[in-house]
Amino acid sequence: MNEVETTTSAIGPGTGGEPSRLALRRVLIDTYHENVAYMHRDCEVYRAEGFKALSKVEVRTNGHSILATLNVVDDASIVACGELGLSKAAFEQLAVLNGHTVTVAQAEPPESIGALHRKLAGERLGLDDFRAIVRDITEHHYSKIELTAFVVAANRDELDREEVLFLTEAMVEAGHRLDWQEPLVVDKHCIGGIPGNRTSMLVVPIVAAHGMLCPKTSSRAITSPAGTADTMEVLAEVELPVEQLQQIVHQHRGCLAWGGTANLSPADDVLISVERPLALDSPGQMVASILSKKIAAGSSHLVLDIPIGPTAKVRSMPEAQRLRRLFEYVARRMKLSLDVVITDGRQPIGFGIGPVLEARDVMRVLQNDPRAPMDLRQKALRLAGRMLEADPDVRGGDGFAIARDILDSGRALKKMNDLIEAQGSRHFDHGHPQLGRLSFEIRAHGTGVVSGIDNLQLARIARFAGAPKVKEAGVDLCAKLGDEVQDGDVLYRVHASYPADLEFARQACARSSGYRIGRAEDVPHVFVEF
Amino acid sequence: MNEVETTTSAIGPGTGGEPSRLALRRVLIDTYHENVAYMHRDCEVYRAEGFKALSKVEVRTNGHSILATLNVVDDASIVACGELGLSKAAFEQLAVLNGHTVTVAQAEPPESIGALHRKLAGERLGLDDFRAIVRDITEHHYSKIELTAFVVAANRDELDREEVLFLTEAMVEAGHRLDWQEPLVVDKHCIGGIPGNRTSMLVVPIVAAHGMLCPKTSSRAITSPAGTADTMEVLAEVELPVEQLQQIVHQHRGCLAWGGTANLSPADDVLISVERPLALDSPGQMVASILSKKIAAGSSHLVLDIPIGPTAKVRSMPEAQRLRRLFEYVARRMKLSLDVVITDGRQPIGFGIGPVLEARDVMRVLQNDPRAPMDLRQKALRLAGRMLEADPDVRGGDGFAIARDILDSGRALKKMNDLIEAQGSRHFDHGHPQLGRLSFEIRAHGTGVVSGIDNLQLARIARFAGAPKVKEAGVDLCAKLGDEVQDGDVLYRVHASYPADLEFARQACARSSGYRIGRAEDVPHVFVEF
Repeated sequence: MNEVETTTSAIGPGTGGEPSRLALRRVLIDTYHENVAYMHRDCEVYRAEGFKALSKVEVRTNGHSILATLNVVDDASIVACGELGLSKAAFEQLAVLNGHTVTVAQAEPPESIGALHRKLAGERLGLDDFRAIVRDITEHHYSKIELTAFVVAANRDELDREEVLFLTEAMVEAGHRLDWQEPLVVDKHCIGGIPGNRTSMLVVPIVAAHGMLCPKTSSRAITSPAGTADTMEVLAEVELPVEQLQQIVHQHRGCLAWGGTANLSPADDVLISVERPLALDSPGQMVASILSKKIAAGSSHLVLDIPIGPTAKVRSMPEAQRLRRLFEYVARRMKLSLDVVITDGRQPIGFGIGPVLEARDVMRVLQNDPRAPMDLRQKALRLAGRMLEADPDVRGGDGFAIARDILDSGRALKKMNDLIEAQGSRHFDHGHPQLGRLSFEIRAHGTGVVSGIDNLQLARIARFAGAPKVKEAGVDLCAKLGDEVQDGDVLYRVHASYPADLEFARQACARSSGYRIGRAEDVPHVFVEF
Repeated sequence: MNEVETTTSAIGPGTGGEPSRLALRRVLIDTYHENVAYMHRDCEVYRAEGFKALSKVEVRTNGHSILATLNVVDDASIVACGELGLSKAAFEQLAVLNGHTVTVAQAEPPESIGALHRKLAGERLGLDDFRAIVRDITEHHYSKIELTAFVVAANRDELDREEVLFLTEAMVEAGHRLDWQEPLVVDKHCIGGIPGNRTSMLVVPIVAAHGMLCPKTSSRAITSPAGTADTMEVLAEVELPVEQLQQIVHQHRGCLAWGGTANLSPADDVLISVERPLALDSPGQMVASILSKKIAAGSSHLVLDIPIGPTAKVRSMPEAQRLRRLFEYVARRMKLSLDVVITDGRQPIGFGIGPVLEARDVMRVLQNDPRAPMDLRQKALRLAGRMLEADPDVRGGDGFAIARDILDSGRALKKMNDLIEAQGSRHFDHGHPQLGRLSFEIRAHGTGVVSGIDNLQLARIARFAGAPKVKEAGVDLCAKLGDEVQDGDVLYRVHASYPADLEFARQACARSSGYRIGRAEDVPHVFVEF
């Protein structure tokens, strides 16, 4: 059988097929991680090319090219005929000036679209497939629809552990990778979901004070009322250029910075833009997201915290064990030494939820203030102890005591103050933290024991109150699990800075306070492995 | 255990919580089926409410409310501080004038979001879940991300047949339903994927000439180079008000109109807006989409055409049988009498691909012109024969001969001309159809037998040439499967009206002509059940 060969012979006029030229215009609309192109409906090019709303176009200039989703516009003041508008982020990718000539054509589908379709059809993908998909995601070749399709198709048990490894590897390769030139680089990470869980801000000073290298880069809040970067930002600058960050780490053995400037695993940031609105957090994606960031950040040892509780991300021990095995499988193949700890996730950690309130709790622990939350202190010491045991000179089981000594002696506080100074102090007044000036209290009706605190609802209330955008907003807990309360006792106080926020939070509390008062035997059991 | 009850007591100033008011502004951007709201970054309300790009907002005025995805804008000429911009379709849903005062707040998630999350987690949903989801989709409460998540989560075998039934039922309920006040209302439908397959335009006149009620509403092309509505529009008006459509049907026993004006199964149109870019067409969604439209259109009997071929939607007999059973299960439960026919889908039907070329083929068959494509004639007669056998007065097996008699005698042509006249003739010159003035030919290199024609590639070439938007553009086939061709023989001719379209089509042909020349024994087998 001979494959057909064909000749094309034009028999009509105008066979030129010159690409269509338009003047570039920056349209100041923030479409987040999606490239959007705007074209006037009466534009000669739009009409001739048979584009459709939402179809993909390829925009070229100066050897650069980007793909964008087309929105059709009927207002010449946004884009006129003969112009091509680009949303802010898309415009920046082309790196040329307003008015520059660009050509536009119907886009070929992204290179990896075949792999995406095979995943949608339920097939198993290989390393090269994931590399192609992650490259297209990183280069903004996927529309929001395609991104969502990938995230949902890779949800649940749709990825086997080999595919999770491939995805992790592809995500590491797609960004920068830091190299600290030392054999031992320790880090810790929590899978999230527990409000107030600011152990990193205690663990880093303890471990760094011991002399181990702990260059902690953290994220900002995605769905929570505060990420470590948001809370640290109350005390110090966190958006540091990579060079400054490296210099601080070399001098002080640690840092507490935002990871966004370092371009580590950039595909993760794009994927999060659709995972967040869908509240999707499947095991495979969680493992690839966390491990790709840690490996790209140059860590050699990682202590990973998986909290369990009725309103935590992980709700049972078998589920936690399955997740642990997946983390361990991928970490071993990526040559990352991993120590998984399963912790108590039945309620928020500490008292404060929201950047300022959490910073207050952290500083009280470091200052050995009697008002410091004991659960936050204990958890931080245990995690720091595990990290210290990565040091070959520390005997197994000794880590906790060493950590406690560093904390009690004030050496951890000293290290924290050094880090704040090095990153750029924001002069937070520990003694009198400024909380949101508007507030209300939620009180118990009836007497009994606090038998349930809903992590999700308290996070929601703190977010409605303004956290993390409004640093001084949030929730301050006055009663924790197992505490006896009398009718009328304050359960928690909500702080806000704007009336509208206060009202949103009040409505959320009215729907559900997040607290349950019952008997002592109603308090859920704790599953803890360490 | 007593559930907690709480009191809220405000202890700060400004407890008002007045909703935030903004002046409405129509932003002439076509975001297709997604509601988008535009707010200036410096707007007091944006800052205070802690909105984020891509978060959902609820916009209220005059008792109406809509949900929209937020885009943040830094250009006061698009929206200024104190204004809320809405994309075109979103603006129309509020039915108020520019400048009207609206209030805006963070949106509660759509009511059905819990059901969506359960589907994402792999759970089976009930009828009420599907009702809630379809209602939210119809009312534009879902963002593109949520829509895509639903479509992908309901992809493949994720819906069992009971769920497909529930989805179909919910989709019917969400729109209008026509009632023709007659016991026998016949219709036909093809699952699609075969270019040139314009049998409806032959079947409707034949069946209506016999006196059966056949009110055919068709779609426009979604991914194909022409839908029945696009091709019929060459001959007559197809966008008819529902009243006129009903009047034509009562007078002439049939019609060939676009279904979009009747608001039948409106959720389907929204779902298509994400299925189309992903090229997703899972069995469950196909069944729900097709049957919901037909049931809403008031059909009592449906002949359903499932073509099989190497480049058709369905590629094997077992797959076709599985699909048939799913269609039959849902149809029976919905009390629709269904007759599934499995047809030859190895190549395009007829010669022309594109609205004018297909209209030419159809009219040649009706006129008994010797140049008429025999395959189109034969297929239409067989389908019409099946439909005629729904008439209790027609004996099983007699349908084909009756249909042939109606066609050969000119009664079908007469009926078609009546329908064209009633819908509003567009004065198409059957004798000299106006084709795109630019064209090129694709010729065979080598001698042999046409052993493969790729439906997908020929559809793509016709679309690049401008079809269906440019009615006179498309592909005209000169050789079909099994034909012997000599070196240099013309395989097909491409017609376009614009140089850029011609060039896109030429590039597509250069990548692959879609034709394979081989030996007679290389022609794939045909699987036909009728």
